[in-house]
Amino acid sequence: MKKFYIFVASIFLNRQPNSLKTNKKKIINDPVFGFITIQSELIFDLIEHPYFQRLRRIKQLGLSCIVFPGANHTRFEHAVGAVYLMRSAISVLQLKGVKITRDEAEAVTAAILLHDIGHGPFSHALEHSIVDGISHEEISAMLMEDLNREFNGKLDLAIRIFKNEYPKKFLHQLVASQLDVDRLDYLRRDSFFSGVTEGVIGSDRIIKMLNVRRGELVIEAKGIYSIEKFLISRRLMYWQVYLHKTVLSAEYLLVNVLKRAKELVMRGKRLFATPELEVFLKNRITIDHFLSGQAFQGRSLLSIFASLDDSDLFASIKQWQYEEDPILAYLSGCLINRKLYRIKISKQPFSEASVRTLREKIRLHFGVDETDVDYFLVHDSITNSAYAAGDDQINILFKNGKVSEINEATDINLSSLSQSVRKYFICYPKELDIK
Amino acid sequence: MKKFYIFVASIFLNRQPNSLKTNKKKIINDPVFGFITIQSELIFDLIEHPYFQRLRRIKQLGLSCIVFPGANHTRFEHAVGAVYLMRSAISVLQLKGVKITRDEAEAVTAAILLHDIGHGPFSHALEHSIVDGISHEEISAMLMEDLNREFNGKLDLAIRIFKNEYPKKFLHQLVASQLDVDRLDYLRRDSFFSGVTEGVIGSDRIIKMLNVRRGELVIEAKGIYSIEKFLISRRLMYWQVYLHKTVLSAEYLLVNVLKRAKELVMRGKRLFATPELEVFLKNRITIDHFLSGQAFQGRSLLSIFASLDDSDLFASIKQWQYEEDPILAYLSGCLINRKLYRIKISKQPFSEASVRTLREKIRLHFGVDETDVDYFLVHDSITNSAYAAGDDQINILFKNGKVSEINEATDINLSSLSQSVRKYFICYPKELDIK
Amino acid sequence: MKKFYIFVASIFLNRQPNSLKTNKKKIINDPVFGFITIQSELIFDLIEHPYFQRLRRIKQLGLSCIVFPGANHTRFEHAVGAVYLMRSAISVLQLKGVKITRDEAEAVTAAILLHDIGHGPFSHALEHSIVDGISHEEISAMLMEDLNREFNGKLDLAIRIFKNEYPKKFLHQLVASQLDVDRLDYLRRDSFFSGVTEGVIGSDRIIKMLNVRRGELVIEAKGIYSIEKFLISRRLMYWQVYLHKTVLSAEYLLVNVLKRAKELVMRGKRLFATPELEVFLKNRITIDHFLSGQAFQGRSLLSIFASLDDSDLFASIKQWQYEEDPILAYLSGCLINRKLYRIKISKQPFSEASVRTLREKIRLHFGVDETDVDYFLVHDSITNSAYAAGDDQINILFKNGKVSEINEATDINLSSLSQSVRKYFICYPKELDIK
Amino acid sequence: MKKFYIFVASIFLNRQPNSLKTNKKKIINDPVFGFITIQSELIFDLIEHPYFQRLRRIKQLGLSCIVFPGANHTRFEHAVGAVYLMRSAISVLQLKGVKITRDEAEAVTAAILLHDIGHGPFSHALEHSIVDGISHEEISAMLMEDLNREFNGKLDLAIRIFKNEYPKKFLHQLVASQLDVDRLDYLRRDSFFSGVTEGVIGSDRIIKMLNVRRGELVIEAKGIYSIEKFLISRRLMYWQVYLHKTVLSAEYLLVNVLKRAKELVMRGKRLFATPELEVFLKNRITIDHFLSGQAFQGRSLLSIFASLDDSDLFASIKQWQYEEDPILAYLSGCLINRKLYRIKISKQPFSEASVRTLREKIRLHFGVDETDVDYFLVHDSITNSAYAAGDDQINILFKNGKVSEINEATDINLSSLSQSVRKYFICYPKELDIK
Repeated sequence: MKKFYIFVASIFLNRQPNSLKTNKKKIINDPVFGFITIQSELIFDLIEHPYFQRLRRIKQLGLSCIVFPGANHTRFEHAVGAVYLMRSAISVLQLKGVKITRDEAEAVTAAILLHDIGHGPFSHALEHSIVDGISHEEISAMLMEDLNREFNGKLDLAIRIFKNEYPKKFLHQLVASQLDVDRLDYLRRDSFFSGVTEGVIGSDRIIKMLNVRRGELVIEAKGIYSIEKFLISRRLMYWQVYLHKTVLSAEYLLVNVLKRAKELVMRGKRLFATPELEVFLKNRITIDHFLSGQAFQGRSLLSIFASLDDSDLFASIKQWQYEEDPILAYLSGCLINRKLYRIKISKQPFSEASVRTLREKIRLHFGVDETDVDYFLVHDSITNSAYAAGDDQINILFKNGKVSEINEATDINLSSLSQSVRKYFICYPKELDIK
Repeated sequence: MKKFYIFVASIFLNRQPNSLKTNKKKIINDPVFGFITIQSELIFDLIEHPYFQRLRRIKQLGLSCIVFPGANHTRFEHAVGAVYLMRSAISVLQLKGVKITRDEAEAVTAAILLHDIGHGPFSHALEHSIVDGISHEEISAMLMEDLNREFNGKLDLAIRIFKNEYPKKFLHQLVASQLDVDRLDYLRRDSFFSGVTEGVIGSDRIIKMLNVRRGELVIEAKGIYSIEKFLISRRLMYWQVYLHKTVLSAEYLLVNVLKRAKELVMRGKRLFATPELEVFLKNRITIDHFLSGQAFQGRSLLSIFASLDDSDLFASIKQWQYEEDPILAYLSGCLINRKLYRIKISKQPFSEASVRTLREKIRLHFGVDETDVDYFLVHDSITNSAYAAGDDQINILFKNGKVSEINEATDINLSSLSQSVRKYFICYPKELDIK
Repeated sequence: MKKFYIFVASIFLNRQPNSLKTNKKKIINDPVFGFITIQSELIFDLIEHPYFQRLRRIKQLGLSCIVFPGANHTRFEHAVGAVYLMRSAISVLQLKGVKITRDEAEAVTAAILLHDIGHGPFSHALEHSIVDGISHEEISAMLMEDLNREFNGKLDLAIRIFKNEYPKKFLHQLVASQLDVDRLDYLRRDSFFSGVTEGVIGSDRIIKMLNVRRGELVIEAKGIYSIEKFLISRRLMYWQVYLHKTVLSAEYLLVNVLKRAKELVMRGKRLFATPELEVFLKNRITIDHFLSGQAFQGRSLLSIFASLDDSDLFASIKQWQYEEDPILAYLSGCLINRKLYRIKISKQPFSEASVRTLREKIRLHFGVDETDVDYFLVHDSITNSAYAAGDDQINILFKNGKVSEINEATDINLSSLSQSVRKYFICYPKELDIK
Repeated sequence: MKKFYIFVASIFLNRQPNSLKTNKKKIINDPVFGFITIQSELIFDLIEHPYFQRLRRIKQLGLSCIVFPGANHTRFEHAVGAVYLMRSAISVLQLKGVKITRDEAEAVTAAILLHDIGHGPFSHALEHSIVDGISHEEISAMLMEDLNREFNGKLDLAIRIFKNEYPKKFLHQLVASQLDVDRLDYLRRDSFFSGVTEGVIGSDRIIKMLNVRRGELVIEAKGIYSIEKFLISRRLMYWQVYLHKTVLSAEYLLVNVLKRAKELVMRGKRLFATPELEVFLKNRITIDHFLSGQAFQGRSLLSIFASLDDSDLFASIKQWQYEEDPILAYLSGCLINRKLYRIKISKQPFSEASVRTLREKIRLHFGVDETDVDYFLVHDSITNSAYAAGDDQINILFKNGKVSEINEATDINLSSLSQSVRKYFICYPKELDIK
């Protein structure tokens, strides 16, 4: 039986690209775009890789499904959808005479496929609690390097494009800019699954209007109205879906659950957790732990991170409802059973006095120490701007060859869209309303 | 702090309906039907209940998302969608003069909301492995009784309708029959999320054509073509989505993973598992354990079952990839990383000789005992019929008042639809293809 | 046979509401909103009336189908769709406690059904050529009065609401304001049929957000982003569809065809024309002719106008291709065979010199007199603003009860939307490009 | 001015392909398929041709809009949609290794573009009244030959394919067979615009499943369920839309209007009619008149036919309401104002006695002669089969290379679909119900 065991190891631990496969064509049935055909062998192999398959288990919108029950779509679907749009964009540009080689086309497609590979489950919440100070972009870069080694350098060009180190700047812009195919896919997809049909954007039309001037992506003037619409839809999706107040309330509850669990574990308390999650609860992880390749439980931290998914969090938090620490039990129960905190939003900061009163109320009601009040109270602000002119601006190409930034090109005043809007909010358990 | 702890317990362990709530109107944004308004307080409270909230964490189509990546919708959404269609059906019937009281309307709506409450995660696979011999229908009934106690008998009428013990038989037929709103919702919803647009049915039109004659549900003759289409769509969805061969392959892999884990645990091996799942691995559970109210780890089995969701399975199986038992490690790795077994389907049974050869190949390749070959080989058959005439038939109402069974009413031959079709299949690891 | 003849007359000339009908329920299958049920007998009878049936033969977007080939939808469908939205709006408002009586509900529905009854075929072009100085609003009012007589005063309340003479101002606002159901339907419908999916608005959501304060329509604050989106979509639809440059070019060509035909007829030339159109070619019609009830060819002008539809224009213009007047033949051929004029658009007026040069080129190329050059040259400007604050502004209702105009309520700067944008354009035959 | 006149003539009478055009790329915005790009110059020029532009003025579904108000789409849109699907089909087949040259691809595309070019307005009704005995297929062929002359033989190959005279039989099958792109487009498009969403077929999937074996089109076995669904949808669309009883009633009313008008004109009565229609009223046209090239009013009959469109009929019939012949006036008024005949449908023929009684009732009620009763009574039957096995059967390609006819391949019994179903109907004025 030894042979077999080695076989298991070779497939699943080292994760060699499967050399047994013969047919590498794949058609994916996507509810948003219909049939998506994967034509490149490299892209096919990347999709098959466990790093990428993991994205099937990570929801694109994290806890938004708590408000929009249809929003269970995953980062896997989004990445595949972005591949589809990238191919459209490439072929539109090629038809207009923009030179894109076969290798560049494959590389920019690989770059968009992998652009979000470093996302953990509920990454926003994670980054504010147990993997503090480490961004998913850094992890994406590390995972891409790792894959590149495994694929013998076939991702070199993709990585250069991803990092904006490749001369044809427009390729990077297709992957990451204010008008990248990432956004074109996610706005449309998030609208579709959340049921917020107003967020639907004309991705087809925007792509048809793409062009390149002096190495940079531009939009032909006929597309101005579509761009305006795109910016307004993006703004709408932010406030109405991504930063929906109940979603915020849930996300901050999750942050508090994880903070409390980590605090207890650091204090020596033993909690049920999946092994991968445990690593992040037991250790104060910094980016250096990732970079140094230090092993935890015999595996590199990067590999452990690359195994984390939504199920680790929910399987663990569900148990925490029954923990003896009443705070952790309370917070976890609230999240699992959707007893979310009341949230109030305001354009002005909440007065110190009102916050102080609320803290006192909490202290009395729950009988907790002052230092633990923060588990029952979130007081923070969010900020968002639909569009930021500057280095990474949207440029319009006029029929006479002139290129202008969108704000100069349109006759409505978009400048207000680029001002970031700040909103203050405060969350606390609903039962405090009553007293 | 004691007070607080009791408070936690009262909310989350006893799960009293939350009496703090004031506003019980709810609008749910559904990508399939748009805004769904929940108007009844009872329905609102049932939706808020942890038993029902759990359905948010159980995918409607189990492992189908392994083939149809958009099919991540949950049993929660389906149940809410069915509520929406039920309300349409009620109002269509009332407009046609069918008497349905306010209480009956609420009860039939509660019945449809709860009709799937007893589903566990990946229930098909579970019922073939670790909760053998217990159907989700039985558990649904137990959970409904449990809720009824908690809601002080408010579900009496709903339960009578659900169990077909209420004189107005058509109410039960709206919940469970060959043309119930359950099917009307799931066919449409599963089409929507899987991207198999061909499965789309005209639920609007079918509902407009509903009527009641002699206490039973009938379809007005103008709707015949819609019914034909509905039956063909159902058939298509079965073979193309629900019984898609790759989905089958994945489901049987999951069955084998769970069987292997249970075997190991029963033999005394300690495996990582979430506490709820562990109960089902460590014990040979029968329906009697549920009925007797016997406690496991201090909780009733029903309550434990009512906590299981998709995350328990995936969080556990993910760890099993690293178990030392090579079979469990192998099977789990295959499932998590989507290295699914090759599946072959045939209208004829596979010959004994060919199966024997394959078993031998497996034995040699994996170096396993004869008794363990079954983990690497699935040999089974599936059967499906789109429509079954008989007691629960679809009846057509003609303009002249005559009622006939659909098969007599239509001029195409649907009889073939009611013959059940059997298909044989065999699954084995892809690497065996090569040798 | 005399009896029969009188019968014909009574049905078709006097157009008495058909008293033979028994079942006045109607379900209309609308591709935009699905099944639309007509529940009121009055609305049913109005739809059956020849004045309203005529709208089946008048395209909603006139010549837009020359650019958007799917845009063949008619004013009939739009009016029925608006009825559907009106019913939603009424029921949303009633649920929120706004008092709307049964009579008011029927009246406001009748008002929206008939709001466009006075539109002629290609009304924009007609109003700039052969029915100069008469607006479709005036004719709508006359036709409504006419119907009211025929329906024995049953439209009294509808007319008061239409004319804004009824105390509950919000009812009028539902029919005609910056956020009326007219716009909600046409933006959505025109998007749908033109294929310009970006114009899709969240009519469902906007309607859910309607409320009434101090007798006027307001939008609840949660709906702000939907309103922004609505205004931007409206702007997009204007520039991209309604004022699409090729559509403009076609419409001005139609204006010139009709002007030329009228000029020839007034000079005594005999042209083929349908009898109804002929009346408008032979006579300089003013609003007084309508008001005085003067007969033309034995029928009142209003009744003649109420018979005109798209077929009159196309059937006549098609013949004019073969007329001996070369200008009329040329213009008509261009329109029928889609050889449209080149159009150039600019934010600045075209210089007098460039226009003069073009006129001279035309004169030489076509060998026409200076006075006839205008048939080959259109030089005009269009203006549009997406939103106009002022009397008829969009008001937002905040949770605290405060009501503000949308511009104050939103944190983006919509003021630019209310500035009207003027664009200059010039059209001329394409063959002049070459020389 | 002479030069100008000649110019007009050259453009519009001889209809030379416009040689002035420079940019022959075209993007058409289609509500069904999104952006459709026309890439071939030949296809572009054919679309621009007046013969093809005329299809903009001919509704695809004739009088169906009288029941389905959204069904105003034209033969122009259908033909362009079919071009889109043809291009998908070609590229799917090429990817599978089927050899299709550039010339063949253009030719088969031209063939599908022009396949319906010979349709007149409301062709079904026309072929049963004033152009008796001449099918639109014959006229299509003549118009294609005519275009071929004008395009200097560039349509040679297209015509061979159209007539099934080209060796690669599958090309003809793409244009005309039981699974041609014609049907794939029209079923989907007619569903879309009629709002009968149940008719929606999976054209994408069917096209993905196309293949060629021994020179003939086949469907890969995975597509069987889609084909079943396609056949059932087709059947549904026939009975629910194309042969909807109210549509039938309207079409037969139109037949009677035209028959009456022709009878009166042949008797010497002068009626208002557009000049093109008049030719068909005044003369007993046979196919020989077309073939001989005989001139009517100085133009060939083919050219006159190629000018007829919906507006000719409606503009003329509208006037006939005011004719002194009471029968013509009555029939025309009924059609224009949608006072359609009552229609009764039965699977059995109506008894002679009941028809006789009805005739007598009509004779008395309208005071008409026995010979004219037929204008008030339609007694006929329709027949339809969803699929006909035989020469032009649908063939399924199995994985093992075997090809079988669909009926053998599927496990449901489709044979009933190929039996043609006959239904009898009778129509008469509604006022006869009352007496």
